[in-house]
Amino acid sequence: MRSALVVGTGLIGTSIALALTRRGVEVYLSDADESAARTAASLGGGRAALPTQPVDVAILAVPPARIGETLAKAQSEQWARVFTDVGSVKSRVLDAAETAGGDLSRFIGGHPLAGRERSGPLAARPDLFEGRPWVLTPGPATSRDALNQALELVSLCGAVPTVMDADEHDHAVALISHAPHLVAALMAARLENAREQSVRISGTGIRDLTRIAGGAPQLWEDILAANAPAIAEVLADYAADLSEAVRALRAVAGPDADAAKRGAEDLADLLRRGNAGHARIPGKHGSPSASYTAVAVVISDRPGELARLFAAAGSAGVNVEDVRIDHSPGREAGLVELLVDPAVAERFATSLGASGWTVQA
Amino acid sequence: MRSALVVGTGLIGTSIALALTRRGVEVYLSDADESAARTAASLGGGRAALPTQPVDVAILAVPPARIGETLAKAQSEQWARVFTDVGSVKSRVLDAAETAGGDLSRFIGGHPLAGRERSGPLAARPDLFEGRPWVLTPGPATSRDALNQALELVSLCGAVPTVMDADEHDHAVALISHAPHLVAALMAARLENAREQSVRISGTGIRDLTRIAGGAPQLWEDILAANAPAIAEVLADYAADLSEAVRALRAVAGPDADAAKRGAEDLADLLRRGNAGHARIPGKHGSPSASYTAVAVVISDRPGELARLFAAAGSAGVNVEDVRIDHSPGREAGLVELLVDPAVAERFATSLGASGWTVQA
Repeated sequence: MRSALVVGTGLIGTSIALALTRRGVEVYLSDADESAARTAASLGGGRAALPTQPVDVAILAVPPARIGETLAKAQSEQWARVFTDVGSVKSRVLDAAETAGGDLSRFIGGHPLAGRERSGPLAARPDLFEGRPWVLTPGPATSRDALNQALELVSLCGAVPTVMDADEHDHAVALISHAPHLVAALMAARLENAREQSVRISGTGIRDLTRIAGGAPQLWEDILAANAPAIAEVLADYAADLSEAVRALRAVAGPDADAAKRGAEDLADLLRRGNAGHARIPGKHGSPSASYTAVAVVISDRPGELARLFAAAGSAGVNVEDVRIDHSPGREAGLVELLVDPAVAERFATSLGASGWTVQA
Repeated sequence: MRSALVVGTGLIGTSIALALTRRGVEVYLSDADESAARTAASLGGGRAALPTQPVDVAILAVPPARIGETLAKAQSEQWARVFTDVGSVKSRVLDAAETAGGDLSRFIGGHPLAGRERSGPLAARPDLFEGRPWVLTPGPATSRDALNQALELVSLCGAVPTVMDADEHDHAVALISHAPHLVAALMAARLENAREQSVRISGTGIRDLTRIAGGAPQLWEDILAANAPAIAEVLADYAADLSEAVRALRAVAGPDADAAKRGAEDLADLLRRGNAGHARIPGKHGSPSASYTAVAVVISDRPGELARLFAAAGSAGVNVEDVRIDHSPGREAGLVELLVDPAVAERFATSLGASGWTVQA
């Protein structure tokens, strides 16, 4: 790939432009808001202009609702040989592209699974996609050339490509992202009017569970609307399991001993399935997060405490795979859990203890 | 408090014994398994024996099913003046104590919200309760003396006392702990048989959401059984909201424009309520976690990288309030989010950038 056009210089478009520019690709930038394109250019994303010759790849980083028309225009004006987009829902994009009369052989859907809480070109980073999955959804008409150009794009951005059907993609993100968002929002919503003293004893469990419910509502309204059928399907299955769980809980609490026993078995089975499903989620480097051992250390709330702790890990030659800080209400001391290779956990805990740290492991 | 008896020297009982011993309290230890009591004693938890005179407080740290009989026995043998327990469900304990003929004026229910993944006396730590909430549930008959003895116990263990009715407690933990556990397990369970390529693109969202679903099934079977009615109530409300959400999603995807508009509004309202509920969960020191700003830094996967990063925070005089490590599948580099006071975030990001770190903020 020698040249590219980014249409739509928001967070994702500008980040792609920055990544490609760094790898020596000649990048053109276009946005309905000309100042956004100029901002992306001033950040080093390329030239705020349309190409005079067709570039290798045009990346359509515009809102989902505008992809069809943008593709039709970009193709009729011959801005590029191959076209892709970055929307988080894919089957509708293909329909829209077809409806708009686009040449589908030169189009391939794309979805980099990366993002930030901030938006706009100023939030862009060339390494936004580093190590992230980037799904490509070739349609039946997509040419081998289009696929290969897109694979090169993904590679230049440092992302990890995965090829799926558009429908398959939409069901996958409904399952692993969109439905979980609503599941979290529904749980968090139950706290809105809860009594203060109930909320006050909340711990890390519900905080982690509902973290994604803190996300920007407007962005999520659009995502939920765009992928509504697939999300509804996942949540309907979820709801069926949930009513089984409620039934089992009521049986456990009820007077019928046999029903109580069966209810308890059903709950046990649900917990087991939850364990099994959770274990499948990739952790760092694709390995299950369950494979690390937690070493818990008590620290005071002073600047430098974590630095001293990680310095101790470094001196011990221990790589900290993950960190969890356990906040305590109304206290200055906290608990830090360092997740490390089980093979070194005991040695590490001992060495921390010997250095004066209070270790809970 | 000068003397105490711990009945049941598992994780919680032994941790209490260690905390009290450190504060100069004379502690007696008893367990149905004598070797467990001897282990607790050898760790410095006190004497593996029953008191010859009544102690000030007896802490019944036995399984929930055995609290009634244990209380009746402990009271008839006059082991202590005041009695408390540590079970995670409270209304049944009071019933059991009453049924067993205990003197309820000298009993007060208790629930320290602390725990570990490991169990047994060897996992015990004197600082297990440091800064944690510890709920006390006096019944109508509980004496002022029993309440004050329990408050001293909580204080000696370094925990933060909260007084509630037993029913109120059970509903609170159903809401903030037990129902969320099932909500997470139900979502994780949907991944058990999901296609590998769907699971492979999972990100931090669903990993955080389902983290608690990785917990020990046996422990959770007991908790769910003990608090089944309250959990069923929370989940039934949750299920009603969920079916509204499914209905709204289907309306959004459906042909009726008015219904679609109303569905979108309902989803927007749900997301807003989720935001509001999430914002109520206490973060560090009881302040909302939403009040921190994330400074994201790219790090390589070498021992010492986090140490260097936290050392940089320390030199900049910045207190890191929370840390999130964002794992990338199949890559050596990772993204670390440091949550800091918004007032110092920009200065901190600039100073990290100046020291050669790649900062995304």
